[in-house]
Amino acid sequence: MTKVGVVLSGCGVYDGSEIHETVITLLALDRAGATAVCMAPNMEQTVVNHLTGEQMEGVTRNVLEEAARIARGAITDIAKIKASDIDALILPGGFGAAKNLCNFAVKGTDCEVHPEVARLIREVVAAKKPLAAICIAPALVSKVLGDDNLAHKLTIGTDEGTAKAVTTMGSTHVECPVREFVIDKENKLVSTPAYMLAGNISEAAEGIEKTVKAVMEML
Amino acid sequence: MTKVGVVLSGCGVYDGSEIHETVITLLALDRAGATAVCMAPNMEQTVVNHLTGEQMEGVTRNVLEEAARIARGAITDIAKIKASDIDALILPGGFGAAKNLCNFAVKGTDCEVHPEVARLIREVVAAKKPLAAICIAPALVSKVLGDDNLAHKLTIGTDEGTAKAVTTMGSTHVECPVREFVIDKENKLVSTPAYMLAGNISEAAEGIEKTVKAVMEML
Repeated sequence: MTKVGVVLSGCGVYDGSEIHETVITLLALDRAGATAVCMAPNMEQTVVNHLTGEQMEGVTRNVLEEAARIARGAITDIAKIKASDIDALILPGGFGAAKNLCNFAVKGTDCEVHPEVARLIREVVAAKKPLAAICIAPALVSKVLGDDNLAHKLTIGTDEGTAKAVTTMGSTHVECPVREFVIDKENKLVSTPAYMLAGNISEAAEGIEKTVKAVMEML
Repeated sequence: MTKVGVVLSGCGVYDGSEIHETVITLLALDRAGATAVCMAPNMEQTVVNHLTGEQMEGVTRNVLEEAARIARGAITDIAKIKASDIDALILPGGFGAAKNLCNFAVKGTDCEVHPEVARLIREVVAAKKPLAAICIAPALVSKVLGDDNLAHKLTIGTDEGTAKAVTTMGSTHVECPVREFVIDKENKLVSTPAYMLAGNISEAAEGIEKTVKAVMEML
């Protein structure tokens, strides 16, 4: 049975994993006959009120506990997962990918990536296993691979500022419409813009479904 | 443009809306060309740690704010929605449907339904607009329609205890496998077991996609 790791970063677009992107990923994997291995870092996160869009001052939640909501409790601390446990790795988006898995949302190109997330990405790439990143998640992949001076290409859609940032961090950025994906066959790296560009859930779903299919075809 | 109300009850299977069921509903609606009108009651809820499955003592969250996570902020207090605002109504499952939208999880057949949820269900049924309930949500529909002595049929899958409860509350219960749905054409009432029976997300998705299709065909 093919096992595909899915790295979550909380539960909710403004401070965690983008929920639609994550569920669409889980459904596409299951329909492709793969078992999703959900994981998240065991760390505190800040919280955004998703009704108002405002930061909830002084409130924190645990990323692993909140991510467990999307995974229906079936989730593991990413620190316990090695590349040898999985056949591929997918990182959905949401601000959690840019605030919890790394601090790109605050520090931009000078960001640091959570050490366990960076470790697993390096292990997966070194093992020549497929790696997919959705929405803003390619930014943290860019930081990790860029720091290693590994030439690679990916997309964050068409946003000029973010495209410039991933170029600065070491990626070759490829513009990509929302219903498509970009594949770097040499590094087995797939990326799709999803809600970086999507105006509705169907647009995000089409790009993600194609991304999952591309991952499965590389196995 | 067809507008379909989706009644949320928080964000997470153990204390809110079942996230997979909700996202699959939203995606199926969008792909069918309908606009989802997400809504939830503005009320406090208790909180379950989804990593451990344990109640978080003394902690509460707001149902509308948490449900906004799944809706990406595009959500309205159910008290502000009338049946005339929508063409159909869908209630996804999750324990929030049995703890927040009503207290069936605690009181069983003696449960009370949140007054705004009960009002909107009554309005939709009276207007002869389609109503769909997923997973455990048929239990609260059963309570509302049973109290009104409206003969109707629905499913909660095959669980004997829950089937007996909805029968007691006034429904005719029809057993249903996970990938199917039950339709009461006279009352335009559709129901599917989803995670009452599903062993994986694909099983839940198939029943929900068929349910949404049945709702759209009745419009």
